[in-house]
Amino acid sequence: MKNILILGSTGSIGRNTLDIISSFPDKFKIKGLSAGYNKNELIKQIKIFKPEFVSILNKESAEEIKNLFPSLKVYYGEEGIIELINIPDIDIVVNAIIGSAGLKYTYEIIKAGIDIALANKESIVMAGELLIREAKKSKIKILPIDSEHSALFHLLEDKEKNIIKKVILTASGGPFFEKDIKELKDVTVSDALSHPVWNMGPKITIDSATMMNKGFEVIEAHYLFGIDYDNIEVIIHPESVIHSMVEIIDGEIYAQLSNPDMRYPILNALSYPEKLNTPLPSLDLNKIERLTFREPDLNKFPLLKFSYEVGRKGGNLPAVLSIADDIAVEKFLSGKIKFLEIYDEIKNIVNNIEFVEKPDLEYILNLEKEIKGELKK
Amino acid sequence: MKNILILGSTGSIGRNTLDIISSFPDKFKIKGLSAGYNKNELIKQIKIFKPEFVSILNKESAEEIKNLFPSLKVYYGEEGIIELINIPDIDIVVNAIIGSAGLKYTYEIIKAGIDIALANKESIVMAGELLIREAKKSKIKILPIDSEHSALFHLLEDKEKNIIKKVILTASGGPFFEKDIKELKDVTVSDALSHPVWNMGPKITIDSATMMNKGFEVIEAHYLFGIDYDNIEVIIHPESVIHSMVEIIDGEIYAQLSNPDMRYPILNALSYPEKLNTPLPSLDLNKIERLTFREPDLNKFPLLKFSYEVGRKGGNLPAVLSIADDIAVEKFLSGKIKFLEIYDEIKNIVNNIEFVEKPDLEYILNLEKEIKGELKK
Repeated sequence: MKNILILGSTGSIGRNTLDIISSFPDKFKIKGLSAGYNKNELIKQIKIFKPEFVSILNKESAEEIKNLFPSLKVYYGEEGIIELINIPDIDIVVNAIIGSAGLKYTYEIIKAGIDIALANKESIVMAGELLIREAKKSKIKILPIDSEHSALFHLLEDKEKNIIKKVILTASGGPFFEKDIKELKDVTVSDALSHPVWNMGPKITIDSATMMNKGFEVIEAHYLFGIDYDNIEVIIHPESVIHSMVEIIDGEIYAQLSNPDMRYPILNALSYPEKLNTPLPSLDLNKIERLTFREPDLNKFPLLKFSYEVGRKGGNLPAVLSIADDIAVEKFLSGKIKFLEIYDEIKNIVNNIEFVEKPDLEYILNLEKEIKGELKK
Repeated sequence: MKNILILGSTGSIGRNTLDIISSFPDKFKIKGLSAGYNKNELIKQIKIFKPEFVSILNKESAEEIKNLFPSLKVYYGEEGIIELINIPDIDIVVNAIIGSAGLKYTYEIIKAGIDIALANKESIVMAGELLIREAKKSKIKILPIDSEHSALFHLLEDKEKNIIKKVILTASGGPFFEKDIKELKDVTVSDALSHPVWNMGPKITIDSATMMNKGFEVIEAHYLFGIDYDNIEVIIHPESVIHSMVEIIDGEIYAQLSNPDMRYPILNALSYPEKLNTPLPSLDLNKIERLTFREPDLNKFPLLKFSYEVGRKGGNLPAVLSIADDIAVEKFLSGKIKFLEIYDEIKNIVNNIEFVEKPDLEYILNLEKEIKGELKK
């Protein structure tokens, strides 16, 4: 029986985690849940999963929950999440908190010496080197639960590094990969929010439309698996059935496939190293009939190319890229800039920051404030 | 440096083996070659690869070769092949002899305690249980060098058996998978000999057109990897880029992909467990653009369905199936029966033989003569 803590339990990953866990009452016990603002969903989850500890951002919501469940230990605020991480006997924490806010919790979990199932990709993009170093020190596992890195984790698991020629990340291509660059000029927010395969929050959906998301994943793959940027390739695969591939020096490529459903990588991470019988349906290639592939057009998706440049320079720049993208996407969603200006906005921020070769955690955690302050001047 | 012996060096697999080996003069030394009737090709190979031992079926050819290369040790006949197997210091033998004749050499190689790179699939179909048992006793590796089983070998290598849900063998589908069953009635020999992907000998090309070949591979997979017939699936994949897949109980499917070229699995087997840098081009999925999949139509390919029935019954029947297919394909190639009658011919032979639960090697080696004698009555 593994004791599980879920940070961000009311979001898409959090809900998928609870859904898949509910098939294995003998394997997993939900010890704690944390939510942001969705009090009602959290209350529903408490009734079903009976955690001993919860945390919610707002103090009044916390008191309300406390009144409903008198025997429950209820924390609140950012400190509440830190309290949760430090409750005893947790075997694995799911960090599904969205955005750069997730980083400090990833760090706390690693420092606490607990295995982490990581959905918050900002953590690794912003502080990859530092987190991997700390994880090694603490002897804990970072188990990615996005489908691409989960696939790479398993594909690379038993392989010596010197036999790896390259890794290939697949990308759905988002809603625009078939559009002409000229057509992208007048793309609306609602065009960009309609993703063909994955149903996700607005920020990651826009990141998917610009392929910034895949750029982040390239940087993540570099830090998580120690692969040179020259050996990380991106290929557009609209069906999202092949999650990633690894090419061996002998010319063989190994791929991981499943239906595009986050519950597969989530269960993989939580049960690791054990494999559990999935309650989800098998992939039926006869029904899918075809898997297609296309080279990404770097003119149309300059942020993908830019991510490689930023990744290669390293230092503080991947963190800056992550925050710059937060800012630019917010501007696009609120109608302040056009779709194709997202890139200019981001490039502008990244190119105007002072380069820091070895940023420490404090620097990275303060980066958002600093950049936003700088922009207001 | 590995000392290599190639049985059947002038056939398609033999020539591919020498081709790929020639890129690694520091890794492999050709100690011995055996050929059937293609004396001129063997002479060419001797000049290039300078083996110390050769064998050829015909005695006069052997004498001619001896005169050309006085310092070469030249054997002949079936005994010549046995002599080759028993020369000292061989690290691995490639058995690329075609047809049921290959079985006795597979047995000799295993008995001699030498690792075997096995292209002769008749060996495993006809005597799988016995050969696997002997291989375990001799502590040698059977390394399949057809692309499907080579893929399965690597995909299953580090995985515990209890996490395997099923294996999926891909099939090109041969030249007829898109044809209507009515159109198959009047298929000519030359129609059946034009394979869309692989360029192979006539017997295996017809076996591919009837999908008998895939039926044999199902039986092979059962014996080589100990997988239940219920957990072996066949899927038509005309591009032959995915060579096989393994589905894990957690719902993830792992696949091996490369360009359809026999030299990949051959090098894999010869270098095992080491991985060598292939001189062959990488698979470029951007160029291939699409991989397609189709369920095999068992009405159109009754031999595939029949193979499962024969495999499940086991005993002597897989061996009988192999020989019955030799006989039926020969009849088709010489115009004695029509394409759709191949199945009837085979079914007739298999259904009329006496069932033997535990056939020994002698029984299996004599089976061809016995069946042919029976048919002449």
